[in-house]
Amino acid sequence: MIVLASQSPRRREILLNAGFSIEVRPANVEEIPSESEDPEAYVLRLARDKAAASEARTEEFVLAADTTVAAAGHILEKPHSVEDAARMLRLLSGRTHQVLTGVCLRHGGREWCGVESTQVRFVELSEAEILAYAGSGEPMDKAGGYAIQGLASKFIDRVEGCYFNVVGLPISLVYRFLKEAGYGAPA
Amino acid sequence: MIVLASQSPRRREILLNAGFSIEVRPANVEEIPSESEDPEAYVLRLARDKAAASEARTEEFVLAADTTVAAAGHILEKPHSVEDAARMLRLLSGRTHQVLTGVCLRHGGREWCGVESTQVRFVELSEAEILAYAGSGEPMDKAGGYAIQGLASKFIDRVEGCYFNVVGLPISLVYRFLKEAGYGAPA
Repeated sequence: MIVLASQSPRRREILLNAGFSIEVRPANVEEIPSESEDPEAYVLRLARDKAAASEARTEEFVLAADTTVAAAGHILEKPHSVEDAARMLRLLSGRTHQVLTGVCLRHGGREWCGVESTQVRFVELSEAEILAYAGSGEPMDKAGGYAIQGLASKFIDRVEGCYFNVVGLPISLVYRFLKEAGYGAPA
Repeated sequence: MIVLASQSPRRREILLNAGFSIEVRPANVEEIPSESEDPEAYVLRLARDKAAASEARTEEFVLAADTTVAAAGHILEKPHSVEDAARMLRLLSGRTHQVLTGVCLRHGGREWCGVESTQVRFVELSEAEILAYAGSGEPMDKAGGYAIQGLASKFIDRVEGCYFNVVGLPISLVYRFLKEAGYGAPA
């Protein structure tokens, strides 16, 4: 059983689909980048802080993650409004951006941490497509303002790297960490 | 409304998730490669044949597809048995393979057809992992003997190209064809 220190329904689903048993125990950590911090350092620190803040015993396997989107020199967090989502989509349209997820696994007083990076290419979007998608509701709780597994799937013609990283959890990296930590491998 | 000439529940789900309305009307086409046919030509011919065999009126939008896996010089179709699935997984382990989907859209007496290719990298699998996954039931109805969206997600650390092509339908290519054919774009 893995203790998932995240409220994200996507992370939960990725772990369940991959065959893992989980228990969700979200950790409350303030998500504020410090001034000198680059995106890699930021998501790694947040993943570490979330794993450390989760209420778990030493012998449990605690998993935490944080995802951010870096596009055209901007960091795109979750949009604050439909207008904010439209602004993000204009930055993503016709360009390749980077999705970064920091992952931290804690077990037996040790930590396995890392950052996974995936390149994602959006096709050129018309203003009508941007406004329709921004208003669909889907962007609102997603870093970068889109869900690759949802309505935005048709706008993305190329991924380079781990696909599940873009959904919110690089499952192959998590699996590697779990094996290194001695977690019993499921099918 | 799109007429989907395929029984694949994955293709159905990809279209629904992307916001399209569909009606499933499978077409029966014999899936036998001819001797001189390479994988690209084969999946393209099958997609065309399926679209043509579907019972639809000229003004309807008919979509058909066929997916195959090319790994280490072998074409991997759906496995015939657990042993056959294990044989395929041994070919995939620690290597990058190619997933090819032929797509054909018919509307108004015209056709939009193409082949999408995606590179997929498997991590090195142990014999225990191969046997456990082969016996899980998941490989049996999948070209190549695995489901990237399922238990096999943890074995795949890199994709280059359209992710949804690996699940069975390159949705961004389908969306492009639909726009070219004048289909009303949903959000």
